[in-house]
Amino acid sequence: MANSRPHIVIVGAGFGGIKAAKLFARENVEVMLVDRHNFHLFQPLLYQISTAILDPAEIAYPIRAFFRENKNVDLFMAKAQGVDQARQVLLTNHGEIPYDYLILAAGATTNYFGMESVEKYSYGMKTIQEALHIRNHVLHMFERANKHQDDEATRRRMLTFVVVGGGPTGIEEAGAICELIEIQKKEYHNIDFNEVSIKLIEATPTVLPMMSQRLRDHTVEVLRGKGVEVSLSTQVVGYDGKTLNLKDGRSIPTQTVIWAAGVKAVPFIANCGAEVDRAGRIIVEENLLAKGSDRVFVIGDCASFCHGTERPLPTVAPVAYQEAEVACRNILKLIKGDKNLESFHYKDMGAMATIGRGEAVVNKTSMNPELTGFLAWCAWMFIHLYRLAGTHMKLTISLKWMWNLLSGTRLGRIVTNIEVE
Amino acid sequence: MANSRPHIVIVGAGFGGIKAAKLFARENVEVMLVDRHNFHLFQPLLYQISTAILDPAEIAYPIRAFFRENKNVDLFMAKAQGVDQARQVLLTNHGEIPYDYLILAAGATTNYFGMESVEKYSYGMKTIQEALHIRNHVLHMFERANKHQDDEATRRRMLTFVVVGGGPTGIEEAGAICELIEIQKKEYHNIDFNEVSIKLIEATPTVLPMMSQRLRDHTVEVLRGKGVEVSLSTQVVGYDGKTLNLKDGRSIPTQTVIWAAGVKAVPFIANCGAEVDRAGRIIVEENLLAKGSDRVFVIGDCASFCHGTERPLPTVAPVAYQEAEVACRNILKLIKGDKNLESFHYKDMGAMATIGRGEAVVNKTSMNPELTGFLAWCAWMFIHLYRLAGTHMKLTISLKWMWNLLSGTRLGRIVTNIEVE
Repeated sequence: MANSRPHIVIVGAGFGGIKAAKLFARENVEVMLVDRHNFHLFQPLLYQISTAILDPAEIAYPIRAFFRENKNVDLFMAKAQGVDQARQVLLTNHGEIPYDYLILAAGATTNYFGMESVEKYSYGMKTIQEALHIRNHVLHMFERANKHQDDEATRRRMLTFVVVGGGPTGIEEAGAICELIEIQKKEYHNIDFNEVSIKLIEATPTVLPMMSQRLRDHTVEVLRGKGVEVSLSTQVVGYDGKTLNLKDGRSIPTQTVIWAAGVKAVPFIANCGAEVDRAGRIIVEENLLAKGSDRVFVIGDCASFCHGTERPLPTVAPVAYQEAEVACRNILKLIKGDKNLESFHYKDMGAMATIGRGEAVVNKTSMNPELTGFLAWCAWMFIHLYRLAGTHMKLTISLKWMWNLLSGTRLGRIVTNIEVE
Repeated sequence: MANSRPHIVIVGAGFGGIKAAKLFARENVEVMLVDRHNFHLFQPLLYQISTAILDPAEIAYPIRAFFRENKNVDLFMAKAQGVDQARQVLLTNHGEIPYDYLILAAGATTNYFGMESVEKYSYGMKTIQEALHIRNHVLHMFERANKHQDDEATRRRMLTFVVVGGGPTGIEEAGAICELIEIQKKEYHNIDFNEVSIKLIEATPTVLPMMSQRLRDHTVEVLRGKGVEVSLSTQVVGYDGKTLNLKDGRSIPTQTVIWAAGVKAVPFIANCGAEVDRAGRIIVEENLLAKGSDRVFVIGDCASFCHGTERPLPTVAPVAYQEAEVACRNILKLIKGDKNLESFHYKDMGAMATIGRGEAVVNKTSMNPELTGFLAWCAWMFIHLYRLAGTHMKLTISLKWMWNLLSGTRLGRIVTNIEVE
């Protein structure tokens, strides 16, 4: 980077980071994208990896493939460890990277709210590895239960699957597990499927807080119709890998707890010399600069934006995407010496969640009415396909979803990373 | 299995084991298929996993999905550890399984011919995990080389890829790596691709021993045209992870050695109370019974069949497949009290290997002439698609191959299991 053009370093190749790099690729600047992976992950479909619908490479796109025509963009595969704002360098496990302007778009990780036992024994779902662990574990539980023909308690514990968290991820995961089990039914001639149970646990009195009451009720109704036991206002207090303990004193014997109950900023964000909120996110000005900085911008899940809103903006892709656009424009202004920065205003694009094949909920926005059922599922499908990175990914995923919709088949039901113990 | 029908235990769900289980599924017997995985792996395409063409679930098919309609077939997911022929039980890490008749179809593993250093540092390619390790490692080498802009020796060592073994697997792997690198070229703006080299090393004076001299010469010519340095009559003596040492005194600085130079029977075969050959395979009678046994049959890569042939039959799918048919018929005879067992006669179906997209070699048989080039590649493609397990697999793989043929794109270029060190 022995170049006199401004050096822009972007940490994180999620929705915000990739968008920012694409915008800068057209400008007279040098861009260094830093990520610990070599791919952009389409996180909203991670639950489909965990339930054997899709394969990893179908929702992960090589970062460099975005920038084939852009010689001013390079990738540095490394773990970010912090920022030294005084010296204007990003710290990584492969050395320091100097920047003129920095965009932190490093995303979020699972929030266990300090419960170490839960962190140790439950399954998070923020990375491909974690999603594959869930897939392998759930499938393996059936094989193990099949070997315990004379021990009902052990079998039931192995065949009880608990999802914690009533947000879109938890809902989608619980729905997809139900359908996975429908397929398993056809293939385990010696398992009594009355012993299988799927539970969704939510700490607050409601699922999908961003949706209307009608959509929430509909969601719970559909899940219950599929056989999911939904427990609202139910808090988890601990888990030892065999028994999940609840605040009301009840306990659930289970070997599978999938934790989709909350997120926080990735840990290195605490080491960037900026003020953070309770969830570890950097508090940003209206122009997306980290409070007190004049060259470090923060966007997406690791930014805490609270201007004109009661609570920080939600950790969803459209926020990151829109913030990337404003952060880029503001950096280009600063490069030109214009200190009159633009303020960010979030345009809510609505929210959606699938509850299984052929069934989804979409909330009302200025652009569309409230939707449920097959129509909502079609809307969900088209929007997700549209946002996916490559043409071929769109094609193979469409094919798999159609196949899955019509036949219920899951092709990914292979246990790849568990050595039989 | 508290059932009076004969209990048939099959170890291994490869080509031979699945074929045998399918044949017995129609008979009045109980079948227990034992495998350490829950899937049948289409091994001939493993090299496509390792070079980011296909994804694991595309060549791995859930075993139970074959036997949905067959309640007399069950899977026991466990590691076989040996056989106690006197007590008629298979020993596994999940306990003993009694049998009336046993078919050992447990397959082969990589043979490092006693070279511990090679075993420790090189990459084998017999399992999905191993193929994914190769993929992750090769892709990661480019990212690491990209970070060493001021150290040419290190960079060259990272960008030198050595494949050992001139059989079909080695040829296919070397050809596919070449093409992978053509794609990488477009995306690493700061790497000089003259520093990249791919070497194929074979200990004997020839590649593809089962093919005619014309096909061998053609194969070497095509590989060299793609940029592979082919070294015949070249033996490896050791590898420390950084330098590959050859018997002629030369050494090659490389961080990537892919070992496709030989196979041997899986280790537990030594613990089955039967006589084995140099490659650890059980020596079988003409009727496929283990020498000296009257109820243990051995088929496929772990059987050593030398009746009327100079060398044991090759470790390829058609042998396992045809042996499964004879072993099944012989077991059914024994069940009926008929001791007049059928002898096995191998019908050679020919051999084929791809050398990259649009290029393959097919040797002459009674059914077809010798083929090279695009026609051979089409034959290769159709035969492999035909043999794949599921309709949907055939569909998505056809799509990917077409896409790859036309655009050269590789979708699986994501590094999933390496923590950035």
